[in-house]
Amino acid sequence: MSDWQTRCAKRKQAQLESIPKEWIVKDPPQMNVMNIPKDCGLLSDHELEITETVDVEVILQKLAAGEWSSVEVTTAYYKRAIIAQQLTNCLTEIFIDRALNRAKELDEILKTTGKVTGPLHGLPISLKDQFTMKGLETIMGYAAWIGQYADSDCVLVEILYECGAVPFVRTNVPQTLMWGETHNNVFGRTVNPYNRYLTAGGSSGGEGALLAMKGSPLGVGTDIGGYLSVRIPSAFCGLYTLRPSYERLPYCGAVNALEGQESISSVLGPMANSMSGVKLFTKTIIDAKPWLKDPLAIRKEWSDKEYDLVYHGGGKRLCFGIMWDNGWFSTHVWRRRVHNTRLTGVVRPHPPLIRAMEITKRALEAAGHTVLDWEPHRHLEIYRNSETIFVADGGEDYQGMCELSGEPLLTSMLPEEGAHETTLEEPYVKRLVGKPYHRTAYELWNLHKEKRTLRKSHLDYWEATVSRTGTGRPIDAIISPAVAYAAVPHGLNTDSFYTTLCNAMDYATSVFPVTFVDGNLDHKHSPHEFYNHEDEAIYNLYDSGLFDGCPVGLQLIGRTQEEEAVIAMTEIVDRALREHEKGQESS
Amino acid sequence: MSDWQTRCAKRKQAQLESIPKEWIVKDPPQMNVMNIPKDCGLLSDHELEITETVDVEVILQKLAAGEWSSVEVTTAYYKRAIIAQQLTNCLTEIFIDRALNRAKELDEILKTTGKVTGPLHGLPISLKDQFTMKGLETIMGYAAWIGQYADSDCVLVEILYECGAVPFVRTNVPQTLMWGETHNNVFGRTVNPYNRYLTAGGSSGGEGALLAMKGSPLGVGTDIGGYLSVRIPSAFCGLYTLRPSYERLPYCGAVNALEGQESISSVLGPMANSMSGVKLFTKTIIDAKPWLKDPLAIRKEWSDKEYDLVYHGGGKRLCFGIMWDNGWFSTHVWRRRVHNTRLTGVVRPHPPLIRAMEITKRALEAAGHTVLDWEPHRHLEIYRNSETIFVADGGEDYQGMCELSGEPLLTSMLPEEGAHETTLEEPYVKRLVGKPYHRTAYELWNLHKEKRTLRKSHLDYWEATVSRTGTGRPIDAIISPAVAYAAVPHGLNTDSFYTTLCNAMDYATSVFPVTFVDGNLDHKHSPHEFYNHEDEAIYNLYDSGLFDGCPVGLQLIGRTQEEEAVIAMTEIVDRALREHEKGQESS
Repeated sequence: MSDWQTRCAKRKQAQLESIPKEWIVKDPPQMNVMNIPKDCGLLSDHELEITETVDVEVILQKLAAGEWSSVEVTTAYYKRAIIAQQLTNCLTEIFIDRALNRAKELDEILKTTGKVTGPLHGLPISLKDQFTMKGLETIMGYAAWIGQYADSDCVLVEILYECGAVPFVRTNVPQTLMWGETHNNVFGRTVNPYNRYLTAGGSSGGEGALLAMKGSPLGVGTDIGGYLSVRIPSAFCGLYTLRPSYERLPYCGAVNALEGQESISSVLGPMANSMSGVKLFTKTIIDAKPWLKDPLAIRKEWSDKEYDLVYHGGGKRLCFGIMWDNGWFSTHVWRRRVHNTRLTGVVRPHPPLIRAMEITKRALEAAGHTVLDWEPHRHLEIYRNSETIFVADGGEDYQGMCELSGEPLLTSMLPEEGAHETTLEEPYVKRLVGKPYHRTAYELWNLHKEKRTLRKSHLDYWEATVSRTGTGRPIDAIISPAVAYAAVPHGLNTDSFYTTLCNAMDYATSVFPVTFVDGNLDHKHSPHEFYNHEDEAIYNLYDSGLFDGCPVGLQLIGRTQEEEAVIAMTEIVDRALREHEKGQESS
Repeated sequence: MSDWQTRCAKRKQAQLESIPKEWIVKDPPQMNVMNIPKDCGLLSDHELEITETVDVEVILQKLAAGEWSSVEVTTAYYKRAIIAQQLTNCLTEIFIDRALNRAKELDEILKTTGKVTGPLHGLPISLKDQFTMKGLETIMGYAAWIGQYADSDCVLVEILYECGAVPFVRTNVPQTLMWGETHNNVFGRTVNPYNRYLTAGGSSGGEGALLAMKGSPLGVGTDIGGYLSVRIPSAFCGLYTLRPSYERLPYCGAVNALEGQESISSVLGPMANSMSGVKLFTKTIIDAKPWLKDPLAIRKEWSDKEYDLVYHGGGKRLCFGIMWDNGWFSTHVWRRRVHNTRLTGVVRPHPPLIRAMEITKRALEAAGHTVLDWEPHRHLEIYRNSETIFVADGGEDYQGMCELSGEPLLTSMLPEEGAHETTLEEPYVKRLVGKPYHRTAYELWNLHKEKRTLRKSHLDYWEATVSRTGTGRPIDAIISPAVAYAAVPHGLNTDSFYTTLCNAMDYATSVFPVTFVDGNLDHKHSPHEFYNHEDEAIYNLYDSGLFDGCPVGLQLIGRTQEEEAVIAMTEIVDRALREHEKGQESS
């Protein structure tokens, strides 16, 4: 074994040894491990009650009332997280004693003073591996970073501590971060608990798998577009999330890939099993005035006015646009106009995604809202521009990190053994962008110029929809896939433009779960005229059996820095979906 | 004459011909032309009354009440602007008919409907040459751009029209914009009306000279640091201004130098003879929701809460820090510690600037505020970082623009004839940065990384002042020079770090006038140990006779995106200064 391999193997062994013997569970043969936390017997009924509570507000109320202690809650989630780790390999840093000591401290403060330590008092929170914590390693999937102990907390962690939270695990990431799946040479591959043959997505895939198994009440991931997002793992794992706009939440002090790349900034966002968790996190962090600690954080208070949808007619009769496809034509017209669609789209969504959009449309209409078709605008130009920016250093950043230890740069997420068969040699985006090379600063400035023009054009296009909504406002939000399919086999998550669009335009965007793939309903469509070779490969990949039972989520896309309104509109959509579901069941 | 020279000469001749014969005034021999508008006889008493009204709110009230018509007001300012043009060469685009037609239209609307067209109804506004207007040329000091007629208004102009304003002249800029003086091959050099031997500053120097002569009630310039700012011309010309944070006001559609350079973004800001103009402009533009037209504009409403100084103790007992010098030590200690100061400062301010800070300190203390010394923090690193970013393209942008017409790139602002003697061969900043070259995108990312670290460090340093203010808050704002001297002879404005600091840190910053150079009070100091060769040359330049009678302004530096608070605190400082002045006069 080479040096880097030895280092990785030792680190992985140390991680294994940090798991208490009594928390070790039997790894079952089946692919779907969602029921193991309930069935394995490790968690008491009380611990199951705690960890099955998806409404984060409820957990906080019980903590504040002293009904549940932080030690109880943290222990329950830690156990469940360790189960998730054994079944999906979702964790990096495990620090049980530290977390429980913190929880104990908080319990004592509450007991002694009768007061909570901030709005997140006693709540365990999981963090993607980028969020440095004093005294812990920050490995971020690089062999070279093993043994790098942080000497301070990043700003987010500082604020979480001030707010009374209990950061309790860190979660896995892909090498370089720039993948929509989660695998690296140090900690290995994270798998999807709904079907371990499939990916949990990336780059916040550790959070995705952990939260899907309810191994954490609230997690924090990051999102830059391309494949790297909070949205793809949330869609693949049935979660709620928010991609806030650049610098709304404090990134300062967290490690990152492509550090200093500010053209399309990475952002951090909450992931949870309820919108309550998403809202609570966003509001709490903003209320903590992050701009006093992070020089880049926007000085903009949480706006109840915007959350009350004052600029969206009070939320009573909203008008949504559905982007059925990122090609030119909506589902209603594509059969007729098929000959014009070539080259203008990227990837057409799989049947379960179309059904999820249909469900959402019906639910929203039933709730009194209007739903129009959203026709894509200049997608290929936007896609080329942003993906070119991501490789403007010709790969210098990644190569440098790998060279430090000698570990190889991963060029694919396909497993070495047992990979699903595929005919896709390389994603379409690679052809669109061409071979990366070291661009000059002046070339980068020209890419910015082009990006500004595209953002202006997209903004004007959106504003112009005022003429067809009937509400006196432009379309309030766009509903679209976050990714063209439900979770795919490892190595096959190649579609990334449904997410990247929002990063490039800096639109505040949420993801919410809609339904599950159902082999009885989601039949393969007949072939369309393919946009490109990847669109064809993705069409061919569809097989309802392969995806059966997987969660299907969608995006809600709002305007730049409209976090409050996006959260409020997602709550409206979510309620409409639950009401609609009830109606279906009772009819 | 070469082709570019012929084009420039023709364009300049066309400008001259656009001035009505009856508005031509005699150019007097003296250097100070501030009284000519009053003395030349072109303006009626009523027109003088209008143009001497520095409180923009008052003008707007009279316009709204129909007491003054927009045609009257626009005519008065146009005449005075044309006088200023003949004496200081401050204008580029002159379009009298268009402006008067617009004014007439507004008058008619008011007459017919009894209603104003927006909050700026009927107000003439001057604009730096970058702000494109449909149907007018946008030359921006480049021979190659002669004949480039804009086919749309930039977002700012769009909003101004919607608010009822009358854009009425455009103002001169330096070639490339990146100079602190105003001279280009097309329109020539703008001079300072207080003393035409001196510069009006730059790059918003056309606005500076025009507003100093009260040839406009309100102007708009731009600010990126280095020499290019609204603040240097405001300090040199006795004006009020605001440099807002990146993207608080809408830049979209305006032309610019180094387009796509987003590391330290250029911003636009108001310039006026009163804070009333500065506040009115800022609030009006923000109230117009610029984020609906400019995709980069921050979605942050005007905050009355922040204007009421809720985060600054209600403004009752503020604590200011005075940065006496951008070297390490304050005026009170520099004599003692002089041996340590070498290499850590950039340029020590001239005696009138020190006196202006002393006046301000006394005025603030008399008004019940506290004033501490502000010790500079990591200035040389910040200066090197930002100035390196500005030349990261190795000059490709400027060279490309000049090559289009064959005009030479200006390498100095010294006049060809009659230049003031100087021993300074090149500014210190050129040595600090080294020879510019084409940097790669990866190198630029590394500069961003360094910049973030510096911003975080400066923020933490500022926050830490909480321990010595006695208010329970960190220092509320910093008072400092905007530039180390009052207006200097043409070609000698080389100091640029007092402004650049704020652009690099993205601090909202105002400039306000304090006093005038007074030969009887502002004696040359004895030499200090010079920070560098430029500091020495600037020390040697001081001669109270040369500067006598020139305005002296200072900066008030607040936090990022704290525009409302900076405006409110500047109003407080301005009131304290006026009160203090009254006290001095009566004693």
